[in-house]
Amino acid sequence: MLFMVRMDVHVPHHLSPEEFDALKATEKARAEELQRAGKWVHLWRIAGQYANISVFDVADAGELHDIMTSLPLFPFMTTEVTALCRHPSAISA
Amino acid sequence: MLFMVRMDVHVPHHLSPEEFDALKATEKARAEELQRAGKWVHLWRIAGQYANISVFDVADAGELHDIMTSLPLFPFMTTEVTALCRHPSAISA
Amino acid sequence: MLFMVRMDVHVPHHLSPEEFDALKATEKARAEELQRAGKWVHLWRIAGQYANISVFDVADAGELHDIMTSLPLFPFMTTEVTALCRHPSAISA
Amino acid sequence: MLFMVRMDVHVPHHLSPEEFDALKATEKARAEELQRAGKWVHLWRIAGQYANISVFDVADAGELHDIMTSLPLFPFMTTEVTALCRHPSAISA
Amino acid sequence: MLFMVRMDVHVPHHLSPEEFDALKATEKARAEELQRAGKWVHLWRIAGQYANISVFDVADAGELHDIMTSLPLFPFMTTEVTALCRHPSAISA
Amino acid sequence: MLFMVRMDVHVPHHLSPEEFDALKATEKARAEELQRAGKWVHLWRIAGQYANISVFDVADAGELHDIMTSLPLFPFMTTEVTALCRHPSAISA
Amino acid sequence: MLFMVRMDVHVPHHLSPEEFDALKATEKARAEELQRAGKWVHLWRIAGQYANISVFDVADAGELHDIMTSLPLFPFMTTEVTALCRHPSAISA
Amino acid sequence: MLFMVRMDVHVPHHLSPEEFDALKATEKARAEELQRAGKWVHLWRIAGQYANISVFDVADAGELHDIMTSLPLFPFMTTEVTALCRHPSAISA
Amino acid sequence: MLFMVRMDVHVPHHLSPEEFDALKATEKARAEELQRAGKWVHLWRIAGQYANISVFDVADAGELHDIMTSLPLFPFMTTEVTALCRHPSAISA
Amino acid sequence: MLFMVRMDVHVPHHLSPEEFDALKATEKARAEELQRAGKWVHLWRIAGQYANISVFDVADAGELHDIMTSLPLFPFMTTEVTALCRHPSAISA
Repeated sequence: MLFMVRMDVHVPHHLSPEEFDALKATEKARAEELQRAGKWVHLWRIAGQYANISVFDVADAGELHDIMTSLPLFPFMTTEVTALCRHPSAISA
Repeated sequence: MLFMVRMDVHVPHHLSPEEFDALKATEKARAEELQRAGKWVHLWRIAGQYANISVFDVADAGELHDIMTSLPLFPFMTTEVTALCRHPSAISA
Repeated sequence: MLFMVRMDVHVPHHLSPEEFDALKATEKARAEELQRAGKWVHLWRIAGQYANISVFDVADAGELHDIMTSLPLFPFMTTEVTALCRHPSAISA
Repeated sequence: MLFMVRMDVHVPHHLSPEEFDALKATEKARAEELQRAGKWVHLWRIAGQYANISVFDVADAGELHDIMTSLPLFPFMTTEVTALCRHPSAISA
Repeated sequence: MLFMVRMDVHVPHHLSPEEFDALKATEKARAEELQRAGKWVHLWRIAGQYANISVFDVADAGELHDIMTSLPLFPFMTTEVTALCRHPSAISA
Repeated sequence: MLFMVRMDVHVPHHLSPEEFDALKATEKARAEELQRAGKWVHLWRIAGQYANISVFDVADAGELHDIMTSLPLFPFMTTEVTALCRHPSAISA
Repeated sequence: MLFMVRMDVHVPHHLSPEEFDALKATEKARAEELQRAGKWVHLWRIAGQYANISVFDVADAGELHDIMTSLPLFPFMTTEVTALCRHPSAISA
Repeated sequence: MLFMVRMDVHVPHHLSPEEFDALKATEKARAEELQRAGKWVHLWRIAGQYANISVFDVADAGELHDIMTSLPLFPFMTTEVTALCRHPSAISA
Repeated sequence: MLFMVRMDVHVPHHLSPEEFDALKATEKARAEELQRAGKWVHLWRIAGQYANISVFDVADAGELHDIMTSLPLFPFMTTEVTALCRHPSAISA
Repeated sequence: MLFMVRMDVHVPHHLSPEEFDALKATEKARAEELQRAGKWVHLWRIAGQYANISVFDVADAGELHDIMTSLPLFPFMTTEVTALCRHPSAISA
């Protein structure tokens, strides 16, 4: 099942730059791992904002939630989740 | 360049069902044509709503606008346009 | 998979009362059919509004969409869809 | 009487992880106690968000308020409360 | 139980002035009847708007809904419903 | 003149629990004093939220403002103020 | 007592231009009458919008409401009403 | 003085396509006239929407308002007006 | 030229009461100075809120901006700015 | 390609005035550099707010993002990004 998630990251000003950099590095590693696993199928930056548009291909909403809460930056995000399905005019399956 | 567009269609109750069906048929044909041309690269239905999430791959914002206004349902849509770019954590080019 | 859907019905003033009553009767029949089929597992009226809160148990987002668009009042609704999953503090499975 | 409550928890970054973990443990115990008492009749996680959708079966709004303010995470929540009633198309009593 | 309801009336321009006047007269009669019955305990006009703030004293949300949908202007209203309870600083019971 | 005021209190996490308890105790005393004086004529808790709906009977907007800013929790509130007047369908004077 | 009112007029496309012009002429006459009576003390156009910012000096909210509903364009307006009072830093009484 | 105006045009479905085309032609002529006069200094299409971002260089807000209400599509627009001034980091005068 | 500005002040809880009192005293002095200079022509308190409605009479938007940023409380305000012009129904010049 | 960006700066009260002044000085230098490079083609202050309206002329959304994140104040901004294209009524190329 596909879910689109928009994630807006709020810079945690109470962390030191070093702590935030460390968080971002572990976030990047986790994101790459999930992409290689075929779970995080699209990841785009929203131009001009500390935000992304992502599409996840997961078994169900529970797996999506486990993935989202496994992200190191999850406590500093606002998320919007949209359940997607096949469009009758889409030419690919 | 990639743009994400969310389109919400407002049912035009002033049209007869036949007129609306005809509009939808031409919309579907145009959508398929743009997908085959490699311009409309993702088209997903938003579950439970008369709306879609689309990603377009176009030369620039002008081409996106020409495509959008060529859609027969464009006068009955609300659209949100988001310019996308490469995410530093994305593993595909 | 569970989805919560809030449906707000907008009274179609361009229909005659008889036409609207007929729509509501077919809506009721369809709602009962979907409940008996185990798909529409909760249906509550929001007090004081022409709106409901519903929970659907479906295979995936595609089945939810097919159900929603099969409702006779769908063209006169605004909907909000929320994907649900198990809460770690819930005592039932 | 049934009330639907949406609770969005805001991570209290001014607490230490240990303090927050302790809060969450007492929240979980209280939630389970209220479910066993038949007051908190549905508890679902909203996928991808630190939020839940709950349904409470209480004598009146006063009992709902007492329950909500007894939750250890209440000071860190935004809540939306919706009073529910029987839907004429619901097939269960 | 007490509920506060804000009602915003949208002038139905598709009705003739006579039809709308007739609707308002029956609305007034119904409002007075519900006040005399002790159900509609406060009714205030919001200054400068075609809107009111009302407080209802009813057995439960179901009775509130039956009252609201019995109002002749209900199909032309937007409503906000807020469940009230006793405030610990209130000096009256 | 009647004003409805909705007050949403934001828990001041920078205060110690003792400081906040002291604030709430003085708030309660002030609220009771204003009720006994016939100025604060209705005070209801909004179920499930740290918020209230109040109605004040004051000489004018200036008196309302003086009352509101005399509340110890005023610096921690968001308020909405609505000027009320007699409704033509109200049966009490 | 002073009230600020923002009025946004929605062009009534179901009226003929002649009917709408007649409405506007009576609106203008009524506005001038209320200004001469010292009730409508400020009337400014919001640049670029079919909207105005007005300040009324009235006995109470009831008089404001009577004035507003006496305006021929009232059924075609959205209004926002704000109760004003003396500012401690204002140098005029 | 510079003003930025965002104009969102709402397609007037109650007009025939010929009437709407005629309106758009006169709108275009008026827009070109105002650009040649040096009043309408920037005019950009918002990609994917029936909307534009414009900058006007006018004597004052009154001239802006006269220009806006002279546009044939003004009755079918929602507008947002923002007053601009020189930015201290701008390198051009 | 006239501008209406709504200013909502956010209490800076990170300042000591003495620091905040000092800020407010300088704000008051500056407000009085600008009123005596004929620039700040109306200043009203919004009843029940730490907010005001002001009207400024300035040469242009640049002068308005210089005035606003000269206010000691400017860093703690949210502002809304509305450009005003003469209303055709206003009887004063 | 042209993008309009609205930037609202949130004063970082956790920084000392000296630290914030230093940030603003580097921001100004970077803004001037980008203007001289022909990338930041318009920069206007929004009157009365700590905000600006900017237009960037860049190769694509990726270049826009690199520019935005190179701004020293980027972590303290809320941004809105709008993709622009040629308007058919614009008289300049």
